[in-house]
Amino acid sequence: MRQEIRLNAFDMNCVAHQSPGLWRHPRDRSGEYNRLGYWVELAAVLERGLFDGLFLADVLGVYDVYGQNADAALRNATQIPVNDPMLLVPAMAQATRHLGFGITCTLSYEPPFTFARRMSTLDHLTEGRIGWNIVTGYLDSAAKGLGRDRQNAHDDRYLIAEDYMEVVYKLWEGSWEEGAVLRDKERGIFTDPAKVHRVHHASQHHRLDAIHLAEPSLQRTPVLYQAGSSTKGRAFAGRHAECVFMSGPSPQVVAPRVQGVRQAAEEAGRDPASVLIFALATVIVAPTAAAAAAKHEEYRSYVSVEGALTLFSGWTGLDFSRYDPDQEIRYIDNDAGRSALENISRADPERVWTVREVAEHAGIGGIGPVIVGDPAGVADQLERWMELTGIDGFNLAYAVAPETFVDVVDLLVPELQKRGRYKQRYGEGTLREKLFPGGRRLLTPPHPAAGYRPFPASR
Amino acid sequence: MRQEIRLNAFDMNCVAHQSPGLWRHPRDRSGEYNRLGYWVELAAVLERGLFDGLFLADVLGVYDVYGQNADAALRNATQIPVNDPMLLVPAMAQATRHLGFGITCTLSYEPPFTFARRMSTLDHLTEGRIGWNIVTGYLDSAAKGLGRDRQNAHDDRYLIAEDYMEVVYKLWEGSWEEGAVLRDKERGIFTDPAKVHRVHHASQHHRLDAIHLAEPSLQRTPVLYQAGSSTKGRAFAGRHAECVFMSGPSPQVVAPRVQGVRQAAEEAGRDPASVLIFALATVIVAPTAAAAAAKHEEYRSYVSVEGALTLFSGWTGLDFSRYDPDQEIRYIDNDAGRSALENISRADPERVWTVREVAEHAGIGGIGPVIVGDPAGVADQLERWMELTGIDGFNLAYAVAPETFVDVVDLLVPELQKRGRYKQRYGEGTLREKLFPGGRRLLTPPHPAAGYRPFPASR
Repeated sequence: MRQEIRLNAFDMNCVAHQSPGLWRHPRDRSGEYNRLGYWVELAAVLERGLFDGLFLADVLGVYDVYGQNADAALRNATQIPVNDPMLLVPAMAQATRHLGFGITCTLSYEPPFTFARRMSTLDHLTEGRIGWNIVTGYLDSAAKGLGRDRQNAHDDRYLIAEDYMEVVYKLWEGSWEEGAVLRDKERGIFTDPAKVHRVHHASQHHRLDAIHLAEPSLQRTPVLYQAGSSTKGRAFAGRHAECVFMSGPSPQVVAPRVQGVRQAAEEAGRDPASVLIFALATVIVAPTAAAAAAKHEEYRSYVSVEGALTLFSGWTGLDFSRYDPDQEIRYIDNDAGRSALENISRADPERVWTVREVAEHAGIGGIGPVIVGDPAGVADQLERWMELTGIDGFNLAYAVAPETFVDVVDLLVPELQKRGRYKQRYGEGTLREKLFPGGRRLLTPPHPAAGYRPFPASR
Repeated sequence: MRQEIRLNAFDMNCVAHQSPGLWRHPRDRSGEYNRLGYWVELAAVLERGLFDGLFLADVLGVYDVYGQNADAALRNATQIPVNDPMLLVPAMAQATRHLGFGITCTLSYEPPFTFARRMSTLDHLTEGRIGWNIVTGYLDSAAKGLGRDRQNAHDDRYLIAEDYMEVVYKLWEGSWEEGAVLRDKERGIFTDPAKVHRVHHASQHHRLDAIHLAEPSLQRTPVLYQAGSSTKGRAFAGRHAECVFMSGPSPQVVAPRVQGVRQAAEEAGRDPASVLIFALATVIVAPTAAAAAAKHEEYRSYVSVEGALTLFSGWTGLDFSRYDPDQEIRYIDNDAGRSALENISRADPERVWTVREVAEHAGIGGIGPVIVGDPAGVADQLERWMELTGIDGFNLAYAVAPETFVDVVDLLVPELQKRGRYKQRYGEGTLREKLFPGGRRLLTPPHPAAGYRPFPASR
């Protein structure tokens, strides 16, 4: 097979995740985010389409930078209300056999001891289909919910994150040896105490003196995802991430970032090809190019400019309510804000963009591209992205849920399969084994997690 | 109908929850605790038997008082390994329609902001079937997992718990008004910002300045369960609990405690009858009394004395490995330890008990009674308990899982129904509406939670 294109679905336990305003579309069902049946149905669609996984974003705060309060976010349902992502997994796991689940957890606010048990529990219940998207958070409003005045400074967050990784590696990898659990009914020994080790950790940020409460799950450490794009974030990804999510409007923007992550992995002593990179994209596909264009146009009519600017304000920390929507972005007098919008406007660098136009453009699919066409046209564009950027696949957002995913599964996946670019069936084994052909269910050296497992790794 | 007998199932996300050693029984399937299918099947059994709920205990530490280390606990699987209880609920909820779920969460170690969102998420996903068993923890080993040297002192734990309740009531009841969520597609307003309120809290123990992240779930505050038996615990239950779990070996021991809880409710200004009280019991029922006795005898042959003493040591803080198992308990030189064993030995006050005999006795069903017989015999005994104690029903532990529950559903429930002592079908509505006939889905005055909802309650 030619280089496989991998697909992940990108979603969140809220309404209109990356498509502000599209909850008003008559066919959008993301308003059912708080019902189990909705998620079980979505998981079945994704498994039918052989998606590697469903990736669930999360925030622990409200987007209250726009207008300096939460009003616009609440009005537009801009990722608020937002429910816990972990609790969707068990029901979806029960309804599927292969689909992986990447869960975003903000380590800044989760005690590592209880967090590690939650992930182990999920890895048990899903039989090894769990991934963790490591984030440190970006909203001051989240810090305020957790009893602080503001977030830690950006670089400090990564120091704290390094320390956190050490704690959870110790719990997942170093506390229970393989073979510790005997379940020996004859001798009456469930666990051999000699093979269970106390974890000691005492740093500025985390203290712990305990054994891990869960017996080893199939993967021990969940598959590690990361999405940081800063220098510190890239170095962190180079050390820890097995999969990286990337957001950019064009292959030209994304390609050097892909190279940056692979280089960071190499600098951390790892094989650069051992990190799988997924680029954010929204695919709007229909049987004909004209039907796809019409569908795109119809979706666009539901975009909320205020909702999109509320997201931008949260991401950048700049209050976009202070700018006239019809102002050209090149005249924005704030470097960070201008550069955030320019990043998106590079989808068409020739065009003169206003704030409103950028918001409307990003109202579907956020910072990533919107790829519109018939199955062959979309497949052509995805192949072009693969070639120009060196990514391994796509993290697909939706415009209208679950319609966007149903269209991809019914129309795009067969086209990619025809081209020898997409798997015909799932591999066996855990998420890690499925993602890395010939791979192991446990992390292996030189990944740092393996260093915390001071006993022979069995498969 | 005569006073209804209510049934709850008592379980935990671990092996042989209250029956140390019985994981070795050939028919015991609690070893499958880490598989979703096991729990989904159990939930279906309980719903078939019209159980009000499945109550899941939890600990965040290991029973390391016995022998001053975790060895005995590990060998005997004494509530270790133990996985997270919350994550079992979504899959069981998807497979049932009425069964309630009471989840134990140790508030000492959960930031209230993220905990409140988890419970709201579960209440959404289960359509109002969630209860919370409020515990403060009792193991120093748990505190050590969370970065402390030991637990807070017992009475301080209840002060901190009071403060915690205030925070979560503010989030669940006071942040989003009824009617705040409009989902108005025409006007493009998902939530009316005027009806969402920021929660401010600044105490010695908890600080928070945020809106609740979840929109109101059907019950808002989950049904509140409590099991504290100390003076402080009883006063706490009197103020907050809607359901109380009680453990005692005989009606004579339990009756005054029931009265104590009802009195505490009255002192808190609440109707004493508005607190439902469930007594721990293990029922071993078979078509004939002889078959039940034989089954009991067979179960008993699998009890682990060491496992039972490991539990006692954790509960009491006294290391029972220091006592000869064949010593008579009346000669134990430690008041707390002797009284713990005497409590259980009151099942037969005439008998002279050794440490081993108490452990063997409590090896099935823990501190509660084991009620053995044919369906009529067991029903007689349950009715006698109801009359002598004033309880509302039973919290049923298992000897062998799920067999103990299957027997109850197949044999005991029809007998209770025949006697007009058990419901013929579930009521409609949320867990709270099912538990309290004519009740509302929200807590109402004089319960303190209602005081944090500064806007008219709708049904």
